[in-house]
Amino acid sequence: MMADYVRNLWYMAAWDDEIPDSGMLSRTLLDQTWLIARLADGGYAMLADRCPHRFVPLSKGRLEGDVIHCLYHGLGFDRSGACVHNPFPAPPPAHVRVPAMPIVHRHRGLWFWPGDPDRADPALIPDFAFVDRDGMRRSRLVIQGHYELLTDNLMDLTHAEFLHVASFGVNGSIFAGRQSVTKDASGAIWNNWDMEGVTPPNWAQPMLEPGAQVDQWLHMRWHAPASMALTVGLARAGSDRQDMVVPQMRNPHIITPETAGSAHYFYDHEATEEAAALARRVFVEEDEPMIEAAQQALGDQDFWDARPAILETDAGAIRARRRLMQLRRSEAEEASL
Amino acid sequence: MMADYVRNLWYMAAWDDEIPDSGMLSRTLLDQTWLIARLADGGYAMLADRCPHRFVPLSKGRLEGDVIHCLYHGLGFDRSGACVHNPFPAPPPAHVRVPAMPIVHRHRGLWFWPGDPDRADPALIPDFAFVDRDGMRRSRLVIQGHYELLTDNLMDLTHAEFLHVASFGVNGSIFAGRQSVTKDASGAIWNNWDMEGVTPPNWAQPMLEPGAQVDQWLHMRWHAPASMALTVGLARAGSDRQDMVVPQMRNPHIITPETAGSAHYFYDHEATEEAAALARRVFVEEDEPMIEAAQQALGDQDFWDARPAILETDAGAIRARRRLMQLRRSEAEEASL
Amino acid sequence: MMADYVRNLWYMAAWDDEIPDSGMLSRTLLDQTWLIARLADGGYAMLADRCPHRFVPLSKGRLEGDVIHCLYHGLGFDRSGACVHNPFPAPPPAHVRVPAMPIVHRHRGLWFWPGDPDRADPALIPDFAFVDRDGMRRSRLVIQGHYELLTDNLMDLTHAEFLHVASFGVNGSIFAGRQSVTKDASGAIWNNWDMEGVTPPNWAQPMLEPGAQVDQWLHMRWHAPASMALTVGLARAGSDRQDMVVPQMRNPHIITPETAGSAHYFYDHEATEEAAALARRVFVEEDEPMIEAAQQALGDQDFWDARPAILETDAGAIRARRRLMQLRRSEAEEASL
Repeated sequence: MMADYVRNLWYMAAWDDEIPDSGMLSRTLLDQTWLIARLADGGYAMLADRCPHRFVPLSKGRLEGDVIHCLYHGLGFDRSGACVHNPFPAPPPAHVRVPAMPIVHRHRGLWFWPGDPDRADPALIPDFAFVDRDGMRRSRLVIQGHYELLTDNLMDLTHAEFLHVASFGVNGSIFAGRQSVTKDASGAIWNNWDMEGVTPPNWAQPMLEPGAQVDQWLHMRWHAPASMALTVGLARAGSDRQDMVVPQMRNPHIITPETAGSAHYFYDHEATEEAAALARRVFVEEDEPMIEAAQQALGDQDFWDARPAILETDAGAIRARRRLMQLRRSEAEEASL
Repeated sequence: MMADYVRNLWYMAAWDDEIPDSGMLSRTLLDQTWLIARLADGGYAMLADRCPHRFVPLSKGRLEGDVIHCLYHGLGFDRSGACVHNPFPAPPPAHVRVPAMPIVHRHRGLWFWPGDPDRADPALIPDFAFVDRDGMRRSRLVIQGHYELLTDNLMDLTHAEFLHVASFGVNGSIFAGRQSVTKDASGAIWNNWDMEGVTPPNWAQPMLEPGAQVDQWLHMRWHAPASMALTVGLARAGSDRQDMVVPQMRNPHIITPETAGSAHYFYDHEATEEAAALARRVFVEEDEPMIEAAQQALGDQDFWDARPAILETDAGAIRARRRLMQLRRSEAEEASL
Repeated sequence: MMADYVRNLWYMAAWDDEIPDSGMLSRTLLDQTWLIARLADGGYAMLADRCPHRFVPLSKGRLEGDVIHCLYHGLGFDRSGACVHNPFPAPPPAHVRVPAMPIVHRHRGLWFWPGDPDRADPALIPDFAFVDRDGMRRSRLVIQGHYELLTDNLMDLTHAEFLHVASFGVNGSIFAGRQSVTKDASGAIWNNWDMEGVTPPNWAQPMLEPGAQVDQWLHMRWHAPASMALTVGLARAGSDRQDMVVPQMRNPHIITPETAGSAHYFYDHEATEEAAALARRVFVEEDEPMIEAAQQALGDQDFWDARPAILETDAGAIRARRRLMQLRRSEAEEASL
């Protein structure tokens, strides 16, 4: 399968609490294996997880101060990827460099920039400040599907009425909703569903008098490549969204390609076993088999070559796909200059 | 591996009792995944098991009346593959069609025609009327080998003297047999072994007086692509095949490609645990490892490119291979007109 | 991955005691599956493990005298690969031949020559006479890595100071050593480490007075393609290597490609459970994951295309790689004449 990633973008590599005590995490991202190291000064380094001498993973070695020592023959590399230590009398081999990438710690995530380092402006990292709040647990799954299939899934929440109907107890309210797709000043694409005067979902009914109606909104924000944030709100009908049944919820749904056929899915949930179980049920038992089946059906075929049917409810997902296509095309043009 | 199937032929997809209560069976046939649905009127539909919207298996959804509803976003498709239902206000997407194939229920099997539907004449389905009889259980295996390697196996029963010598208790009688290869009016190729005045197989000896000789016949009938029927008879020697030791047995050995390197093997046996165990022993423990090893040895190599030694006892198998080659060639010529 | 083996060399196929009681061993060597048969006269035959009739493994059959009978349809082949038996009245098919290779039993190993049989001079088998001694057990592993990655491992023992530091209890003595790389009259390349007046390894300390220093030597001899012999010595410092702490040890480290991405590793160790456990720990838990990770990192990429850093301590390993490259090039030139 062709891996054709947009390079000049911030991607999320890991939640910060995924770095183990050794200080080193190995992870496949965009088809390559990378080593993410937490350094003594609290900063991070991101190096190709492959010693340039005999190609073994540096992550099998040890981090001493800010130097990563290979377990095989003892060469040491600094945060820039330069070889700074040779345990034998000869000097460290010159001109040997492990590829490195800019990495930034923000919003509890570690974000990397696989493109031109001079353009790696941290101000371009999408705003996920809301992630850093108490009572939540951050988590990650690997889904065996192209990352854009996950975008399709998340940017078209109508599937909750079918695939997740039991888990979420939605009662057809999306069918009565109004969809709008917009773009904001940050470059984000929003796919919003607004439902007015509808039957509340099952889980909310105990909080309401019998027969009460609600206004509900599901707003998904997308930044390229696939970093999404979902806002869910539920208010008494006619209260102008002021009289909320529960506080408005915001959750990250951040997707990063692992390979051309698999993706990391970063999400969070309340720090209870119940919430963890629901998240796994929805993602692992319901979404994952669907997305993996779609991936297997496509195989090496490009999504557009498979001539997908386009529905009106797809509008947000398709717009995100088109935006990525433009970005890919413009990077390809730049590269050919 | 090149998949190069003859299209204008009937292939068997399943035994009718393989369709589960949901009414939908998903099966890989000729390298594609198909959905076989039993409709309310007792008829069957055969659609590509892939929603044209996001490419997930329709078989994960549900059959309601004669409409198949996708579990992902709720689109509904009729037996022709047309999209007839969209749960959202917009009309079902026009011009969207799931590929469909003619499917016919006959002789307890479901037969499909992957070629030109206008030529799908059910009269061309080989005669397996004998399959529909009491006391039998129909079964299926998947063998990891090209379907023509199974044809080789079945059209050259001399291997029973080696591979199945313990299971069948044959006593060298095939060595004393006469082989004839013929073609009948239905287009079938027959590979017949007739043994006269030979020692009976072990299993038949308790039914005979000590030292009694028998006439025995093993007749395999082949229709393209690989639908075979075996007739086995055993009569007292010199009785002109009238005084049979047991009633003449007929069994289906119907092979359908799953992929270029694997095949469905449809067979039947008496509805006893003993018969099921013998069938599995012969097919799973004896034939299957042989055929799979041959497949692995060939890998992507074409059978003829591997320059197989040709034996006289191969005559039927080779004739079946040649017939398929002619059919492939003539379809390729048609296609190039 | 391109398999580009030097053909006119002796490779080791198996230890002689690996041949089972059936007399037949099937093994993948240089990307092909071979049958090694021990014949009645004590000699050996090596045939492609693939019947030329229906391509099944001959090793599933039986060896009767010096004839190998296929289990599928009973054809029999002699040690030259000629078909000498057909169980049916027709004569054995003429012109049918199973590929065969020269095979020689020497130094407890079975050595084969995949190149021009006329050049298969047993005198060219490297001298491993020391292998045939009492109290030792010969063993074999399959490592999922290109065979030259194992050569790198063995021809650069500096990794013992990192990867095996706990298992071998080396105390930095290699850092104080002198490396020399030489070639001998047999064409072998030697990578020698000589350490003088160093701290003994942990295991030797109980045999010495406290604080005693030793001279130590680690000499690795390499013959193409990857047949290595290690000599380890340990003597009291200043004794001119005469006053040895333990008798000098010699061990085979013979590597034969299984496929382009995997290799057989033939070694021996003292016939105790303790020695077997140490060998497995060092090879399976320490070396193997490293080599397999390097293989995975390289994937289909050629070692040199990956632009490895070259260290002084690599000198022996690199010289072995260069020698193989010359051999490959000269065989390619011969072939193109």
